[in-house]
Amino acid sequence: MDIYEALKERRSVRKYASDPVPEEKLNKVLEAAQVAPSWKNKQCWRFIVVRNPERKEQLAASMPESNPARRAVGETAPIVIVLCADTEGSGDKDGKDYYMLDAGLAFQQLMLAAYAEGLGTCWVGLFDEEKVREACAVPSEFRVVALTPLGVPAKQPSPRPRKDLSEITYSEEWGHSFIS
Amino acid sequence: MDIYEALKERRSVRKYASDPVPEEKLNKVLEAAQVAPSWKNKQCWRFIVVRNPERKEQLAASMPESNPARRAVGETAPIVIVLCADTEGSGDKDGKDYYMLDAGLAFQQLMLAAYAEGLGTCWVGLFDEEKVREACAVPSEFRVVALTPLGVPAKQPSPRPRKDLSEITYSEEWGHSFIS
Repeated sequence: MDIYEALKERRSVRKYASDPVPEEKLNKVLEAAQVAPSWKNKQCWRFIVVRNPERKEQLAASMPESNPARRAVGETAPIVIVLCADTEGSGDKDGKDYYMLDAGLAFQQLMLAAYAEGLGTCWVGLFDEEKVREACAVPSEFRVVALTPLGVPAKQPSPRPRKDLSEITYSEEWGHSFIS
Repeated sequence: MDIYEALKERRSVRKYASDPVPEEKLNKVLEAAQVAPSWKNKQCWRFIVVRNPERKEQLAASMPESNPARRAVGETAPIVIVLCADTEGSGDKDGKDYYMLDAGLAFQQLMLAAYAEGLGTCWVGLFDEEKVREACAVPSEFRVVALTPLGVPAKQPSPRPRKDLSEITYSEEWGHSFIS
C-alpha cells in the first residue's frame, strides 16, 4: 500500500466482523511498532496482546460507557492491544511527558500497518488505568497509554473534517500566514 | 512509496545537502500532518515553518551544544519546522499529557511523508522552550513539543538496533511470552 493512502485513509474503526486476525498479520503490525523512532532509541513501549474473552471484557469495563468502541474491545474485535510505556525511558521534558509521544509513535506505526493489512484499529485514550493494570498485571513503573481493538472492519468509517492548513500552519512566526 | 518502506527505513537525518525543498513537497508533508488522528479530532497541533537564517540560528541556540542535529537546524537544512500543541485540546488523562501523543502523531505523519518525498527529518525533543517561544512568538497557552530540520539528506544513516519483539510484546498479561 502506498504510504499516502495509509496516512490519509486510515480511520478509527469501532465495528468489527468476526473474522480472525492471521498470526502473520499480527506479527507484521507488531514489527511495524517495534521499529518506531524514540528518544535516544529507548523504545519505552510494551504491547500486551489480549484475546481472552474475559480479559477483553475487563478492558471494556475500564472504558466509559459512552465510548462507542467499548463493544469492539469487549466483544467483537478478536484482539485488543494494550500500549504501556516506561515513564523513565523517554523522560520528562520541562514537564512534558515525552513517553506519551514515543509510545504514541509506536502505536501509530502499528495502526498504519494494520490498515495496510486490511485490519481496523481505534485509539482508546480514556480508561480507568487501575482496571487495565489489574486485568493485564501491568507493573507500577509503567503507565498504560492507550488500547486498541484489532480486527477486520465491518465497515470503513467516513473521513472526519480537518482544519485548513492555513489554520494550523504559520510562516516564521505564530500567526503569520503560510503562503505556499 | 510502500508504507512498510517508510515505517522501517526512515532514519533521523542530521546532515543535509544545500538543495532547496520544493514548495510542492513542503505542502505534501504538511498535508500528511494535517490528516493525523487526534483525541476527539481536536487537532491540537500547529506548525511553524522557519526558513529565515537568523531565526534558524535562534532555534539552534535553544538546543544543547552536544546535540549533533544543531548544525542542521541552524545552518544546513533549508527549513526547520516547529511543532506546537494546545495543551487544553487533547487534555490530561490521569496526569498523562495526551497532547504530547496527538502532536507527536502529526509530526510523525509529516516525517513519514518527508521520507517518501526524499527529504530528511530529525526529532529534536530537548531544547530551551523559552528561546523557541521568543524566536517564533509562540503564545503561552501552547507548548513547544519538538522541532525538526527538513531538507535533502547528505547521507542516509544506518539503522539503529531494536529490542526483540519478545522483549516488548506480551501475551494476555505482563511478562507472559508472546508466542506467534
